[in-house]
Amino acid sequence: MLIDLRSDTVTRPTPGMKEAMFTAPVGDDVFGEDPTVNALEEKIAKLFGMEAALYCPSGTMTNQIAIRLHTRIQTEVICHQHSHIYLYEGGGIMANSLASVKLLDGNLGKITASQIAEAINPDDVHAAETTLVSLENTMNKGGGSIYILDEIKPIRTLCREKGIKLHLDGARLFNALVETGESPADWGAQFDTISICLSKGLGCPVGSVLLGSKADIKRARKVRKVFGGGMRQAGFLAAAGIYALDHQVDRLKEDHARARALGKMLEALPSVSEVFPVATNIVIARLEGISPESFMQKLAEKEIKSVKFGPDLVRFVTHHDFGDEQLEEFGRRITTI
Amino acid sequence: MLIDLRSDTVTRPTPGMKEAMFTAPVGDDVFGEDPTVNALEEKIAKLFGMEAALYCPSGTMTNQIAIRLHTRIQTEVICHQHSHIYLYEGGGIMANSLASVKLLDGNLGKITASQIAEAINPDDVHAAETTLVSLENTMNKGGGSIYILDEIKPIRTLCREKGIKLHLDGARLFNALVETGESPADWGAQFDTISICLSKGLGCPVGSVLLGSKADIKRARKVRKVFGGGMRQAGFLAAAGIYALDHQVDRLKEDHARARALGKMLEALPSVSEVFPVATNIVIARLEGISPESFMQKLAEKEIKSVKFGPDLVRFVTHHDFGDEQLEEFGRRITTI
Amino acid sequence: MLIDLRSDTVTRPTPGMKEAMFTAPVGDDVFGEDPTVNALEEKIAKLFGMEAALYCPSGTMTNQIAIRLHTRIQTEVICHQHSHIYLYEGGGIMANSLASVKLLDGNLGKITASQIAEAINPDDVHAAETTLVSLENTMNKGGGSIYILDEIKPIRTLCREKGIKLHLDGARLFNALVETGESPADWGAQFDTISICLSKGLGCPVGSVLLGSKADIKRARKVRKVFGGGMRQAGFLAAAGIYALDHQVDRLKEDHARARALGKMLEALPSVSEVFPVATNIVIARLEGISPESFMQKLAEKEIKSVKFGPDLVRFVTHHDFGDEQLEEFGRRITTI
Amino acid sequence: MLIDLRSDTVTRPTPGMKEAMFTAPVGDDVFGEDPTVNALEEKIAKLFGMEAALYCPSGTMTNQIAIRLHTRIQTEVICHQHSHIYLYEGGGIMANSLASVKLLDGNLGKITASQIAEAINPDDVHAAETTLVSLENTMNKGGGSIYILDEIKPIRTLCREKGIKLHLDGARLFNALVETGESPADWGAQFDTISICLSKGLGCPVGSVLLGSKADIKRARKVRKVFGGGMRQAGFLAAAGIYALDHQVDRLKEDHARARALGKMLEALPSVSEVFPVATNIVIARLEGISPESFMQKLAEKEIKSVKFGPDLVRFVTHHDFGDEQLEEFGRRITTI
Repeated sequence: MLIDLRSDTVTRPTPGMKEAMFTAPVGDDVFGEDPTVNALEEKIAKLFGMEAALYCPSGTMTNQIAIRLHTRIQTEVICHQHSHIYLYEGGGIMANSLASVKLLDGNLGKITASQIAEAINPDDVHAAETTLVSLENTMNKGGGSIYILDEIKPIRTLCREKGIKLHLDGARLFNALVETGESPADWGAQFDTISICLSKGLGCPVGSVLLGSKADIKRARKVRKVFGGGMRQAGFLAAAGIYALDHQVDRLKEDHARARALGKMLEALPSVSEVFPVATNIVIARLEGISPESFMQKLAEKEIKSVKFGPDLVRFVTHHDFGDEQLEEFGRRITTI
Repeated sequence: MLIDLRSDTVTRPTPGMKEAMFTAPVGDDVFGEDPTVNALEEKIAKLFGMEAALYCPSGTMTNQIAIRLHTRIQTEVICHQHSHIYLYEGGGIMANSLASVKLLDGNLGKITASQIAEAINPDDVHAAETTLVSLENTMNKGGGSIYILDEIKPIRTLCREKGIKLHLDGARLFNALVETGESPADWGAQFDTISICLSKGLGCPVGSVLLGSKADIKRARKVRKVFGGGMRQAGFLAAAGIYALDHQVDRLKEDHARARALGKMLEALPSVSEVFPVATNIVIARLEGISPESFMQKLAEKEIKSVKFGPDLVRFVTHHDFGDEQLEEFGRRITTI
Repeated sequence: MLIDLRSDTVTRPTPGMKEAMFTAPVGDDVFGEDPTVNALEEKIAKLFGMEAALYCPSGTMTNQIAIRLHTRIQTEVICHQHSHIYLYEGGGIMANSLASVKLLDGNLGKITASQIAEAINPDDVHAAETTLVSLENTMNKGGGSIYILDEIKPIRTLCREKGIKLHLDGARLFNALVETGESPADWGAQFDTISICLSKGLGCPVGSVLLGSKADIKRARKVRKVFGGGMRQAGFLAAAGIYALDHQVDRLKEDHARARALGKMLEALPSVSEVFPVATNIVIARLEGISPESFMQKLAEKEIKSVKFGPDLVRFVTHHDFGDEQLEEFGRRITTI
Repeated sequence: MLIDLRSDTVTRPTPGMKEAMFTAPVGDDVFGEDPTVNALEEKIAKLFGMEAALYCPSGTMTNQIAIRLHTRIQTEVICHQHSHIYLYEGGGIMANSLASVKLLDGNLGKITASQIAEAINPDDVHAAETTLVSLENTMNKGGGSIYILDEIKPIRTLCREKGIKLHLDGARLFNALVETGESPADWGAQFDTISICLSKGLGCPVGSVLLGSKADIKRARKVRKVFGGGMRQAGFLAAAGIYALDHQVDRLKEDHARARALGKMLEALPSVSEVFPVATNIVIARLEGISPESFMQKLAEKEIKSVKFGPDLVRFVTHHDFGDEQLEEFGRRITTI
């Protein structure tokens, strides 16, 4: 039995989700006529109390569209130096929007209003104009760390004062919300745009949704077109999103419990010096006396997959194809490495 | 009964295609592990005798990736002024690749080697460097007109001499090939990259494939990432592509026969002054004495959908959901307008 | 004696202009402290009744800055297909602003409000949004042809209605104004931005000025910085501009008179089939029975320089280093070719 | 007497330099015919043992051109986080070249081969491809700190191995060379491109030069055109560059001696907690108990100008208009603040 903990993107749809997909009514979404895509967009916009939504092939696309909406050539985006938008989207901030980046440091991948206040550029020809702050929740490189609303509100206030837009890369936002109990609508009220990924913990095969104002989503549709993200009968995929929102959100708590258990198993290993605090479904272990490559090789020999996450870090992500049986088996296998 | 002739993109998958989709094995294509995506890419690359292929969410994306591969900032693309890449991809040549355009005119949307030879810019600081010629076959705005290989070869020779890349927007290339009997491999030999759309006449719900050299497709994968076109378990969609290549290519001839019949019906109308030569599945009618808007409104009242295609032009596209029954019904309905 | 008619850019400053240059007070213009640059900017802004001005190293820079001010990624510029901004600025519309182009045809390089009205794109994801119309006066490729205000006003009205900006490439605007007697201020009232070249007929060694609103010129300063156009003690150059505005505007009429005379001399040649109407200081001759290369070679043998301007066209430009003596000499020399 | 220590860009040309400017032969550099521009380009290329050079209006332009030469869309530049190219060129790396940045930290603004080795991105779709390392010598934000050749060589070796280009922002390179005694030619041998500023310590009113291979400088000419940096009779300015290279290089040592003296004067102030090591003509003082704004205000009241250089930093730059008399006067004035 392969235990694949590289990412929560590796899951395959459940039978219920597949049934929903292949019975969905579809149409040509480029003409705006796919009823299932439209239903998903309406459902999730309503859930977050935001005006409109746009279904896209990936979270990279929803993030990159948001960045283009909120920047112009010669502007600057403030984000954590370990943000997905900076590290893992192929240089897209620059390649797609020609915007500069101001990269902040901060504990467990999180940044604060006072850091942001200092990082806003002055109105000077030498500096790009700051027009966007982008946050990530949960924060992947922070070990799945969680922002709570009380941390967001002062950032929102600052951005409003300065005329700066606020975007949330909420690829794993539901992982945060099931832990904190905060509501989607309260989060929707804090951001200009939110990107929600359906193909991570929610278990859909494909897709992300961008949330925003009607005006922004209208422009987003044009950016999606130019990126080549307009799909025709996308309802087959969107149906999985509707199913996930209805049936697979609360289940994320199970992933978190298993992640905590998995974190403890790793801490017990002599080659692990530290495990980042496990807040959700991501477990990052710091190694000592062994390289990530060697450690991962040992795991691979036992059919466990993980990913390198820094010079001495390895990451494990729990998900719906990783149940109690897999957890126990994981525990058995790693005792011998 | 609605008769939707706006585009061959409006079709819904056949039961056989849905079955293929539903039962396809899938994996995470961002990790390169979706077996069905891999199978589709290999199958179509082999068919065209090209080294590699990349599955993408849309033909706009495959075209836009190709353009980025073959241009740099301050270079120029030569194409027909009615090309899809210039007219209908949101300004993507410029927005995605920062390349300029040299727009040529030519009968039924086609351009020749001698026109191209004249349009290549000199090596001068004032002019963008010409690095790409892009052709479209069949040519949508030319009424589905067909390039034959003998027209392509002198263009290829010229491009090779000048160090210029040659791309084919083959959104409807199979429509041309079933008519001419020319082989995919002979076409593959003429181009650096070819974009093939699966969601037009081939009847898939979503997707296009970009064909090229291994090196180009490796770079294409990086461009797809930055556009946000990387999908996870995309095999559900790719399965439709495999099915279409196996079962739905030859039937394009039926669309062409019905298009010719439909063209004759339109020619008989007093409000139609001319029908472009019907070479494949596209019928463009020139109106007189009535605006496209009014003409289309009359059709709409009879549940026939078409699209405006110029100040006095209307376009109809036949496809697999438009059978003999629909053709006859179309004929009945339009006699009274 | 070399007779150089390639362009009005080849002139050297007059003794008076040089005296003005090397006695000018200067400072660091990047700190906004060059008094001569500031004086030039104020002088020319006042002359055109516009709020502000920005001195730049070239007319390409002033045009390219204006285009960036009035476009965003995925927007479109409408201009004549023979515009300098499209043909001779290295693909800058796309390379600097990622904007698309809609290229219109029109007699002697001029376009009309009704043409523009048809060319504005619909609000559709497939099309780039039209945000800018750019005109050129005089029109270089139109043989120095002149727009009069009555042609501009309907274009301005249309642009205002549609929320589209209007830019003037006025590289040789003063050539038009000395002929029509129209005032700079009346022209300033019609455009969002105007680019004025100082190093063509006005005879300065270097420089152009961009005119616009205070807000636009503030942004223009930031764009100039990123293009690398901020110069330090630029007052030496700006002083020439002040001198030219004071002493070398009216003289343009002499260039025009000599251009008309030169046009007649060319018309008399058997190898010249046609001379474009000579409106200002540009003379374009259409050849027959000889290629531009051969014709120019014959001229070169007689120490006359000109430039090829199309497959059968040659251009001559008169300027302040081409006086009556040179004109007569030109007449003598060409009689024998 | 105003003592302006904001930058070495504020100087005015000496009488000898002005005489050289005024009497220089000029021509149209866009046609490549300005003899003085050509002479400057040849002279400085020869001095550095590089193939070719290009005169530009500013150091921002020469840096930005170099970055475009060595990057493509979706590539990444490695540089110190305090580099001029990142901090003070308006976001140009992204706005002009669409490249990402990897920002390293390092003592006194300098980075090492081992840091760079770690920062090179893997060949992975998620990451921009590393194609350029850019260094700055002297390093402005490092207090005019100096790289020596022995620090450069391992970086060059690494870049060669990895196929990565190496650019030097040598805005103040001559300040380093007069201190170390290293030769321009030895530096020229280490870099693909070098940018040299003529309007800082060298005392010219305007201009920088980009050095590189013939092929790179040919492409650079095209980039300069699109940025709008092509100037006509630029020889007036280039003449100052020739004069500076002949007469004003060695005197940079005097600026350094005065900077060291000035640094000691500042260290003696109770409000100054630290002065960065003074290696060349830049003095950075760290304040305590007073904000930069208040400190600079006190200086301004005594007609001394400086610039804020961080939350608790103030910068002073010595230059050829700051002689012994000014130094003594500076000493007198600051004793009372």
